[in-house]
Amino acid sequence: MLNKLLLSIRVPRRLLGGINRYLHEIPLSKDRYGIKRAPFSSITDKDIQHFQNILPVQNQILLGPEETTGYNRDYFRYVRGLGTIVLKPRTTNEVSAILGHCNKRRLAVSIFGGNTGVCGGSIPVFDEIIVSMELMNRIEAIDEYSGILVCQSGCVLEQLEEQLSAKRMIMPLDLGSKGSCQLGGNLATNAGGIRLMRYGNLHGSVLGLEAVIADGTVIDLMSNFKKDNTGYHLKRMFIGSEGTLGVITRVAIACPTATTTQNVLFLGMESYEAVLRTFLESKIRLGEILTSCELIDRVSLEVTVEYLKHAAPIGNFPFYMLLETTGNKKEHDDEKVREFLEFAIGRGIVADGVLACEPSKVEKLWQLRERIPAATYSNNFCLTYDLSLPLERFYDIVPAMRERVGHLVKVVCGFGHIGDSNIHLNIAGDVLTNEVQQLVDPFVYEFSRKLNGSVSAEHGIGLLKPKYLSYSKSAEAIALMKQLKVMMDPKAILNPYKVLV
Amino acid sequence: MLNKLLLSIRVPRRLLGGINRYLHEIPLSKDRYGIKRAPFSSITDKDIQHFQNILPVQNQILLGPEETTGYNRDYFRYVRGLGTIVLKPRTTNEVSAILGHCNKRRLAVSIFGGNTGVCGGSIPVFDEIIVSMELMNRIEAIDEYSGILVCQSGCVLEQLEEQLSAKRMIMPLDLGSKGSCQLGGNLATNAGGIRLMRYGNLHGSVLGLEAVIADGTVIDLMSNFKKDNTGYHLKRMFIGSEGTLGVITRVAIACPTATTTQNVLFLGMESYEAVLRTFLESKIRLGEILTSCELIDRVSLEVTVEYLKHAAPIGNFPFYMLLETTGNKKEHDDEKVREFLEFAIGRGIVADGVLACEPSKVEKLWQLRERIPAATYSNNFCLTYDLSLPLERFYDIVPAMRERVGHLVKVVCGFGHIGDSNIHLNIAGDVLTNEVQQLVDPFVYEFSRKLNGSVSAEHGIGLLKPKYLSYSKSAEAIALMKQLKVMMDPKAILNPYKVLV
Repeated sequence: MLNKLLLSIRVPRRLLGGINRYLHEIPLSKDRYGIKRAPFSSITDKDIQHFQNILPVQNQILLGPEETTGYNRDYFRYVRGLGTIVLKPRTTNEVSAILGHCNKRRLAVSIFGGNTGVCGGSIPVFDEIIVSMELMNRIEAIDEYSGILVCQSGCVLEQLEEQLSAKRMIMPLDLGSKGSCQLGGNLATNAGGIRLMRYGNLHGSVLGLEAVIADGTVIDLMSNFKKDNTGYHLKRMFIGSEGTLGVITRVAIACPTATTTQNVLFLGMESYEAVLRTFLESKIRLGEILTSCELIDRVSLEVTVEYLKHAAPIGNFPFYMLLETTGNKKEHDDEKVREFLEFAIGRGIVADGVLACEPSKVEKLWQLRERIPAATYSNNFCLTYDLSLPLERFYDIVPAMRERVGHLVKVVCGFGHIGDSNIHLNIAGDVLTNEVQQLVDPFVYEFSRKLNGSVSAEHGIGLLKPKYLSYSKSAEAIALMKQLKVMMDPKAILNPYKVLV
Repeated sequence: MLNKLLLSIRVPRRLLGGINRYLHEIPLSKDRYGIKRAPFSSITDKDIQHFQNILPVQNQILLGPEETTGYNRDYFRYVRGLGTIVLKPRTTNEVSAILGHCNKRRLAVSIFGGNTGVCGGSIPVFDEIIVSMELMNRIEAIDEYSGILVCQSGCVLEQLEEQLSAKRMIMPLDLGSKGSCQLGGNLATNAGGIRLMRYGNLHGSVLGLEAVIADGTVIDLMSNFKKDNTGYHLKRMFIGSEGTLGVITRVAIACPTATTTQNVLFLGMESYEAVLRTFLESKIRLGEILTSCELIDRVSLEVTVEYLKHAAPIGNFPFYMLLETTGNKKEHDDEKVREFLEFAIGRGIVADGVLACEPSKVEKLWQLRERIPAATYSNNFCLTYDLSLPLERFYDIVPAMRERVGHLVKVVCGFGHIGDSNIHLNIAGDVLTNEVQQLVDPFVYEFSRKLNGSVSAEHGIGLLKPKYLSYSKSAEAIALMKQLKVMMDPKAILNPYKVLV
């Protein structure tokens, strides 16, 4: 119910400004999203005094509805929290002192990063104490020799990217939300993004981290080394655990050397078979310079072209692909790209295409992929799904969904990171009826389960998807996750109601 | 004591053939390596009958000193076990049934892979039941589109590489021991190797695994997707846990597209500063085609040239580097390599060098790096250390050690994966005296701790290094590891006496 309700919150959004102040007046005894408040303590004046001792600098504590509103709603307005206090630690020791007190008093805690998550993982459900990491934004070291960045977890991704560029390095991940998202949140959700195909996932690039567990103990797992096999790899537990096992406070991450060339190809194909063939040939022929490989279906392009008021770059095809190469020597890259295109067009795999290497033209082509979500969200409602599916059946979910609800909605489109087997399915229109809801969900999850897919490729579970976890994970695995949670956080104070229920 | 004793076991090695049968007669009540046998049950005829029911096929059970000898000694002859029974399951269900029974009866278990570990992690200490994974060697799927291999954990690395080549794919890791080592053992020890710099570590490339935990429960964490954020990333716990948390039975791993070109540069430098500079410039100028970057010091080359009876490829320098590039277009790679060399020699960073691209010449240059361990092991004793150290102080351990023991031994040399900040320090000679031992150890570990290094970069902890764990991990982290062990394996039957003590 929760997911259906919240993913269709477009109309109420206009009202949200008006209900800010009332949210704080919702009684905590009332169920929210069908969830009862767990028996946590409520914050007292004595607790606030204690926090004032821990956090002595002005503006480290926010109190009251006006000041805390921004921390009680997510960017997409899917969820609203009832938190009444925001704490902003600057150091690991301050985080440790906060959690130590909360654990002793059994006060629930919600961890707030850049607020760009899409599953409600960083917003309180009831009156959890909000711990915002925004002041923990110190860069400790950038080493161009080893290619390693060490920083606090509240650093914003784009600012890290800027600092790295002076040393000819880049972050191993790039996200649409880079202007706001924080590295700690990226780790907590194991964020993916458009560079993953080239530079791998965060489990590969994160070399070390420091985290504070529920009882306030600081677990120092910092390491500046690509190789460190001394005991269990505990840092992995925190990556992707969405703040429910500990608060990540510092990070050491391996950063690739910057590239200096860029080519973007926008290609049209007549069939999904041709899409797959193009992907395979691009891996073989573009090899080490292939950075991104994205799929866009005809409907996705149509709604985005209309939304952006751009002309389509090529004629009409059922499928389009956006390929990006980056490298270090322009003539070499250009030649590889040209030969790939000659091959793919010559063999009839690619029907038509354009190529860009100037930044403004590259940007314009990328917009046709990156703005698909915005274009579909501009409808009154938009249901969005983030699935990993086997490539041979990757696109089947889209025609299957069109057959079910195509006559009842305006848009059913599929797009995404085909290079990572990750498809986004968006269903948008004017009015989200019960009929549509019931035709879509749980069909999407069942479809994914039949193919052993993942019901959350890169968005995580958060508040919105715990009930779908069993579609991707076995009962034994979920039982072990719950054991781990109890071991790490026996009073369950960290990000309650999230991930596991 | 253990480490000192075992790392210098060269002389007794000659006697080992003769003592095979006597090992089984060593009373279990006797301490081994200073370790007391934990109060596990002893195996009975009834247990053997039970295993015969679980494993019905001939040769799935080995009994007695003759048949089990090979499973009681490691390749390097550092350790000897007293196991009397070897079980060879073919399926996950058989592993589950074995562990279920052992857990119920409190019988200890030792997991045996390709027997190429260097820390004694896969050899029993007392009479642990040996579970050998060699029959679990089925390849389930190789998908060239997604680039994913799915197989049982007992597959041998080199055989996987051969099967992949038909589909223009390669394994993401390459090790000197690839002819024997098994993928499950690679995961259990989080093996590194010479491709890590290019293709990342196993945490990045392993997409899914299946493991059986101590009570026999099968934890299905298989996933064929680069992106899957559904709950805690439990599979990470098993990678690098050296068989102490569960038995890995199946693996899904992302495999890179094969390259078609290869260049190897063997370079000489006058100073360590020039080494660092060469590394940085190679990352910038060779960029995406740089696959390996190895350091060899003068002594390492001298002993290896003598051992191989080869001529040195270039004149005498204090430092040498071996760089490898692999790519997809020979002209492009050759031009990049040539320009890099022109720059590095022109600026006086590199003093001299040779370049090879023919397989036989490439092989000959690689031998100068890969056979350093064999060359140093050919002495009567050889102490070997595997450290990750910060690049700016990476080599300092070698002159420091030469000053301490250079006059007492034949060889003190440093070499290794400078691209991964991983140095190997070997100290070899005729007689390992107490004086040398005391000058070397714990100095090496203290040196590493001062630099926040890792005392085991890629070899793991196993039986030989638990007492050194605290040189790289905090008390809080080790306490959490122990909690995890108790949670996963409350009767401590899996690979006892290893990793944590």
